[in-house]
Amino acid sequence: MEIPALSDIKRAHQRIERFIQYTPVFTSDSLNTITGANLYFKCENFQKTGSFKLRGATNAVLSVRPEERSAGFATHSSGNHGQALAYAAKIAEVPAYIVMPENASKVKIKAVEGYGAEIVLCKPTEADRVNTCNEVIKKTGAALIPPFHDPRIIAGQATAAKELIEDTEDLDYLLTPVGGGGLAAGSALAVKYLTPSTKFIIGEPKNADDTYRSFREGKVIPVKNPDTIADGLRVTVGQLNFEIIKDIASDIVTITEEEIMEAMKLVWERMKIIIEPSSAVPFAVVLKQKNIFEQKNVGIIFTGGNVDMSNLPF
Amino acid sequence: MEIPALSDIKRAHQRIERFIQYTPVFTSDSLNTITGANLYFKCENFQKTGSFKLRGATNAVLSVRPEERSAGFATHSSGNHGQALAYAAKIAEVPAYIVMPENASKVKIKAVEGYGAEIVLCKPTEADRVNTCNEVIKKTGAALIPPFHDPRIIAGQATAAKELIEDTEDLDYLLTPVGGGGLAAGSALAVKYLTPSTKFIIGEPKNADDTYRSFREGKVIPVKNPDTIADGLRVTVGQLNFEIIKDIASDIVTITEEEIMEAMKLVWERMKIIIEPSSAVPFAVVLKQKNIFEQKNVGIIFTGGNVDMSNLPF
Repeated sequence: MEIPALSDIKRAHQRIERFIQYTPVFTSDSLNTITGANLYFKCENFQKTGSFKLRGATNAVLSVRPEERSAGFATHSSGNHGQALAYAAKIAEVPAYIVMPENASKVKIKAVEGYGAEIVLCKPTEADRVNTCNEVIKKTGAALIPPFHDPRIIAGQATAAKELIEDTEDLDYLLTPVGGGGLAAGSALAVKYLTPSTKFIIGEPKNADDTYRSFREGKVIPVKNPDTIADGLRVTVGQLNFEIIKDIASDIVTITEEEIMEAMKLVWERMKIIIEPSSAVPFAVVLKQKNIFEQKNVGIIFTGGNVDMSNLPF
Repeated sequence: MEIPALSDIKRAHQRIERFIQYTPVFTSDSLNTITGANLYFKCENFQKTGSFKLRGATNAVLSVRPEERSAGFATHSSGNHGQALAYAAKIAEVPAYIVMPENASKVKIKAVEGYGAEIVLCKPTEADRVNTCNEVIKKTGAALIPPFHDPRIIAGQATAAKELIEDTEDLDYLLTPVGGGGLAAGSALAVKYLTPSTKFIIGEPKNADDTYRSFREGKVIPVKNPDTIADGLRVTVGQLNFEIIKDIASDIVTITEEEIMEAMKLVWERMKIIIEPSSAVPFAVVLKQKNIFEQKNVGIIFTGGNVDMSNLPF
C-alpha cells in the first residue's frame, strides 16, 4: 500500500465534494478566553452521517470503476464507518452490506438501515465480525471497504484537514484524535503537503494509548482492553496509518477519561454544539497544555457528533 | 407605550449590530425529510450570552443617552435576560445589578458574574424579586430594564426575525415560542412590516398556555402555576406584547411536555446543535401539524442554548 500523494488528496476532494457537506469552521470567544489560544474548529459533527468518515468511504467507493461497483460494498462496523459506507453506497446506487454486532445500539442499526444498507448481525467478537464479513463478501461478491487501513480512506479523510487549512491562515498547530488513524494520517499528510510549518499534534485516550506507545517504540503495539468513552478510538492504529503519523506528528498526548468528559462538556455548554467524546480528545490536549498553545493559531478537527442521548456522561 | 414602527426596528438593528453575533440560518436535510417542509432555523442559540435576549437588552441600554447611563441598569431575572443585561451593560461600560432568587443555579449566577454584573440575591418569590429590585434601583439610581414589556426590548428582539427574513426567500410561515412575548411581538412586527404574506404562528407550552387562552378571549389572562420544562416561557405575556401578537399572529398552538422533549431531542440528534427547551416549542408545532407545513418554506427561531447539562430530560 502506498502513501497517498498530494495529487491523490486533491483528486479525492474533487471526487467527493459534490456529495459531502462543506463543513464550517467555528470559533468561540469563550473558549479562546479560557485557553488563551485562537481556536479554529472544523465541524465534521455537521458532516452528513454525523462524522468525517463519509469522506473516506465516499472516496473509496467512487475510486472503484463504475462497471466494477455493481456487486456493492461491505464492511464490519458498529459505528460511524458503517453509517458512512451505507451512505456512500447509496450515492453510488449500489448495495451495501454492513456487518454489525448483535448488541449494537438500535439507534445505530436504524441509522444504517435508513440509508438503505443491508445489515448482517454477528456475535460481538472481533473474530466473528471478520468471519461474517468474509462470508458476506464470498456470497455477494461485494468489495471490502476497510475503516482506516487503506490509502483511499486516508486520502478521503485528508480532505477535512485540507478544507480547514484552506479556510484559515497561518495555523501554528493542527490537532486530531487517533483511533485507527485514517483521519490522523490523512491530516498529517495534508499538513506536510499544504502547510509544512504547522505542527501536527495528536490526542489519544490514555485508556487506548496504542499509538502513543507505538510512537515511542517506533513500531505498532496493539491496544489491549481499551476502555474509553471515546468509542471511535478503541482500535489499534493501522500499519500504513502509523508509518505516516510516525514521520509527521510532532507529538502524541494522552488524555484521561475525566479530561475527555470535561472538554466535551465545555464545548457543549459554550459552543452549543454536540460533539462526540472522540472529538473532545484533541481539544482536551489544548486545555491540558495551555502554555504551549497560548496566543497560537490552533486548528482542531471535531470528528463527529453521533452521541447516544439516552446514555450521556453528565 | 407605543408599538414599535419599522423605523424603530431598523434603528435598533443599527444600534446593536456591532455588538451582537450575526447568527447563521441552518437547514437540515434530515429534518426536512421527517417533516416534509423546507425548514430554516435562525440559530440564536449561537448568540452571545446563549440567547436572543441580548438583542433587546442591548437595544434598551444603548437607547438611553450616554450621559444618563452612568448609574447603570437593573433587572430581576433567573434566566437569559439577566445574562443579557449583564453583557449589555458591559458593552456600555456601566454597572449592572441583577436580582436573582437565592435558589438560582450556580451555573447561571457564575455566568452573570462572569460578565461583571453585581448579583443581588432575593427570596424565590415574585414579590421579593420585585421589592428587592426596587430597593436596588432606589439605592443606586440604576434604570430598570424589563425583560419583555417594553418597546425598546420588542424592537431589539425583532432584529432576529428581520435577519431571518432577509437571509431567506419567500417564507410561507415564521414561528416563534411565546413567554412574555418580547420575541413573539418583535417577530410579529418584522413579519408585518417586511413580509406581510408570511403567516406568523406561535408555539406555546400547554402547561403555560396564557397567551393561547388570551388569544382566544381577546384579553390577557395571567398564567397559573406554569409547570413546563421550557423555563423561558413560564411568565404571563405582557400587555403591549399581547396587543401586537393578537393583531398579527395567525394561530397559537399548544405543545405538551412530551412533544417539547421529543422535538428538542430530535434537533440535538439530527442537527448536532444544542437548543434549550423553549427553542423546541415552535419546531414541535411543525412536527405536530405536518400537513399544514408540507412543502412550505418555514422559518423557525431557535431562541437559545442555555441548558443545564447536569439536569437533562433524557
